[in-house]
Amino acid sequence: MTTAYDRLVERFARLGALQEASEILGWDRETMMPQGGAEGRAGQLAALELVCHGMLTGADVADLLDAADAQDGLGAAERANLAAMRREWRQATAVPSDLVGALSHATSAAQQVWLQARPAGDFVAFRPALAEVLNLTRQAAQAKAEAGATSPYDALIDDYDPGLTQARIDPLFDRLGDVLPSILDDVRRRQAEPLALAGPFSIERQRELGLKLMAAVGFDFSRGRLDVSAHPFTGGTPADVRITTRYDEADFTSGMMAVMHETGHALYEQGLPEAWHGQPAGRAISMTIHESQSLLIEMQVSRDVMFLEFAAPLMREAFGGEGPAWQVENLARLAGWVEPDFIRVEADEITYPLHIILRYRLEKALLAGDLAVADLPGAWNDGMQEVLAIRPPDDRVGCLQDIHWAHGLFGYFPTYTLGALAAAQLFRAARAAIPHLAEHVRSGDFAPLLAWLRSNVHKWGSLATSEEIVERATGSQLGTAAFEAHLQERYGG
Amino acid sequence: MTTAYDRLVERFARLGALQEASEILGWDRETMMPQGGAEGRAGQLAALELVCHGMLTGADVADLLDAADAQDGLGAAERANLAAMRREWRQATAVPSDLVGALSHATSAAQQVWLQARPAGDFVAFRPALAEVLNLTRQAAQAKAEAGATSPYDALIDDYDPGLTQARIDPLFDRLGDVLPSILDDVRRRQAEPLALAGPFSIERQRELGLKLMAAVGFDFSRGRLDVSAHPFTGGTPADVRITTRYDEADFTSGMMAVMHETGHALYEQGLPEAWHGQPAGRAISMTIHESQSLLIEMQVSRDVMFLEFAAPLMREAFGGEGPAWQVENLARLAGWVEPDFIRVEADEITYPLHIILRYRLEKALLAGDLAVADLPGAWNDGMQEVLAIRPPDDRVGCLQDIHWAHGLFGYFPTYTLGALAAAQLFRAARAAIPHLAEHVRSGDFAPLLAWLRSNVHKWGSLATSEEIVERATGSQLGTAAFEAHLQERYGG
Repeated sequence: MTTAYDRLVERFARLGALQEASEILGWDRETMMPQGGAEGRAGQLAALELVCHGMLTGADVADLLDAADAQDGLGAAERANLAAMRREWRQATAVPSDLVGALSHATSAAQQVWLQARPAGDFVAFRPALAEVLNLTRQAAQAKAEAGATSPYDALIDDYDPGLTQARIDPLFDRLGDVLPSILDDVRRRQAEPLALAGPFSIERQRELGLKLMAAVGFDFSRGRLDVSAHPFTGGTPADVRITTRYDEADFTSGMMAVMHETGHALYEQGLPEAWHGQPAGRAISMTIHESQSLLIEMQVSRDVMFLEFAAPLMREAFGGEGPAWQVENLARLAGWVEPDFIRVEADEITYPLHIILRYRLEKALLAGDLAVADLPGAWNDGMQEVLAIRPPDDRVGCLQDIHWAHGLFGYFPTYTLGALAAAQLFRAARAAIPHLAEHVRSGDFAPLLAWLRSNVHKWGSLATSEEIVERATGSQLGTAAFEAHLQERYGG
Repeated sequence: MTTAYDRLVERFARLGALQEASEILGWDRETMMPQGGAEGRAGQLAALELVCHGMLTGADVADLLDAADAQDGLGAAERANLAAMRREWRQATAVPSDLVGALSHATSAAQQVWLQARPAGDFVAFRPALAEVLNLTRQAAQAKAEAGATSPYDALIDDYDPGLTQARIDPLFDRLGDVLPSILDDVRRRQAEPLALAGPFSIERQRELGLKLMAAVGFDFSRGRLDVSAHPFTGGTPADVRITTRYDEADFTSGMMAVMHETGHALYEQGLPEAWHGQPAGRAISMTIHESQSLLIEMQVSRDVMFLEFAAPLMREAFGGEGPAWQVENLARLAGWVEPDFIRVEADEITYPLHIILRYRLEKALLAGDLAVADLPGAWNDGMQEVLAIRPPDDRVGCLQDIHWAHGLFGYFPTYTLGALAAAQLFRAARAAIPHLAEHVRSGDFAPLLAWLRSNVHKWGSLATSEEIVERATGSQLGTAAFEAHLQERYGG
């Protein structure tokens, strides 16, 4: 007899396959598609989206979910899968479809406006589009909050990390806001200026180096690829993970670190529980855990001396580098250089959380109506003054720098910094659990670390929440202590 | 008021977008996908196929088609679009869904078996799988024949060229079967052995040369790409045409001619009527016209002296070629070398139709039950003896060489040769219509030829049948005269 749960599994398998199709088409758009394909591709993705939405909101889904909830004999994993199904269903049905349509329209328009307004630093041009997105997002948040019995901002956060709340974030960010500025001052006084690496660096060689490093840390090339796009990202599916980077002939380190960052995301995807592939429980649980995996590989590992001792010979070999600039000590100085800057995506690991704290404060104020859209540029610049003691000369490098809000991504920013905290805490636990981990890394043996990540983080998929994963892996709740200790170790006197 | 026709247009636009998504995913599978993605990709394509089938066979489609047929005020183009919709609907509904499922299952299995059996030359292993596909194809052909009021084999042909019939093909193939063997003997006696081009030929240079030639003949790179796959093909969508080739370091001419062949397909796709993009009327009408466009560019143009006079300097420049082997006269001998061989895909333009005639005879006999599957190898070898006077030493280079029948593609083979006939007839008309066409080609100016193809062939999409397109463009019905005249001109004494 086919149970309600079985029928849901079949339905979500088909839905998952169509979502995977969208993922590949999205990757292709950023990496392969000629310009002329843009309009057709938008139509293909919209048609897929419509089909998926229809499958999720079909008249029988609510009944099937209720019947499966009442079903006997489901194990804990099946229950978790069912909960993830319900969550996806709730996200699809909570917001009335005319509001979904209006929001989709408004965010498309806002992104188009942003693409023009950003390089021109023209906030006035962007203002009405942002106001419209904000207005509709507020309504959607209200609807989601009612469906989930939570606050509007928590309902938005929940889209990117199920169960995460403002109440959990506030004390963590307060603490970071307190301690980071003095750490920053301290590090800046003490750090020694690195020697520059003289280019140009052949793009072909950069690509080969990236592939070598990916293979070393455990990227499975039978289940993924490396390509090029304007902004690095991880796409594809767990069985076919597509990461990208960009190459700068004048500086190979930025493209290389992007490869390591995306490889961290990719290892997570490749390590998701195979038995649950295609089901909601088989997916990455949250942006927080995703970012913890990219930052663990990039920030905790690849920018560390132990990794550079392994990678420096490969770097020298790739580009014929020699002399003091190519010694590990100098490479570590380059990889760990700290300097307040206007641009988030170029920030080091000490200033990055301060960028996030600013955005977190501002988006809460915007949503609550405590900050008018027209006042955003001033509030942004005052905030930068406060957290980083620098003031953007224009909105291009100020409140116009990120596309997130134009996209309607409110509640997303905090996961970047929660990911950094989780990365530090998880890596600390890995070091405690794996004898001689640093020596393994130094010799290019990443297998013990990967095995630990597989069995403590990746394998959970959506069978546990972010908080549960961190607690089970590290023995304590997500906090700032490991991150602070990491900064002390790496930069401390 | 929304009419039935309007509703169908909307429905088929969404369907078209999903079919385009499948096209891109199919291209990706052959060019980009890592091995590990295969199972997931099969699931993605099957899910899309299911959705498309559901949209086409929805309970309301038949009523909408009838209502639109009865609607006033539709122009000729709308009527053609409506007819193409009905054809697609009939193809989707004519065969009972359990038979569709069984056939899909049998062809998947047969392809898997073929992949093993072909390299081993093991027909006995392939026999049961082929018998099953044949049995189910016969049933499907019967169902299609009843739905279309035609004969079973005509119903199969119709899938690849609407309206084409065995009655039209028979006299054309009879004539070719009569005249080609003596032309072949004559050419073989007279042709002078070409000098070989000494490699190796860098793959990067081969790629650059291919891109240059594609650009010269008019491929629009803002709406397409060139990549690599095991077997050259044309995929993608009219706004985003993806062609592929393969490179052999020992011989650049085969990869280069594959590029020209696929470019012919691509120019057709890029020239389909833009106003009808996404609708059934906006698609290529048939495999016959598609092949006519690839063969026009490859066989009529690119293997001709006029083209080689343009391309030879580029070839010499690409590979540092010099001496008599790189002169146009020798390059033309290489491009026009004629020799009976066991393998269809490597055949020259004189022996190719004889390969097709053999397959045409055999598949008709198989479907009619006049030839038992067990007797296929013998019949194949006898047939090769008859048409080409050579006898395959084993089934690997005999009846196992093509994947088509394992795929369930019966009725497809004839379109290759009809395409060759149409290519010759169309190119003859183009030469008559365009003053100094050969000189244009010689100087690398393909614009007049492309303009003629655009307005005489490409622009029709599915607004006219293959026969109508050929007749309107050339003033006469598709025949063998132009092809025979072409052979006489190129190879004649």
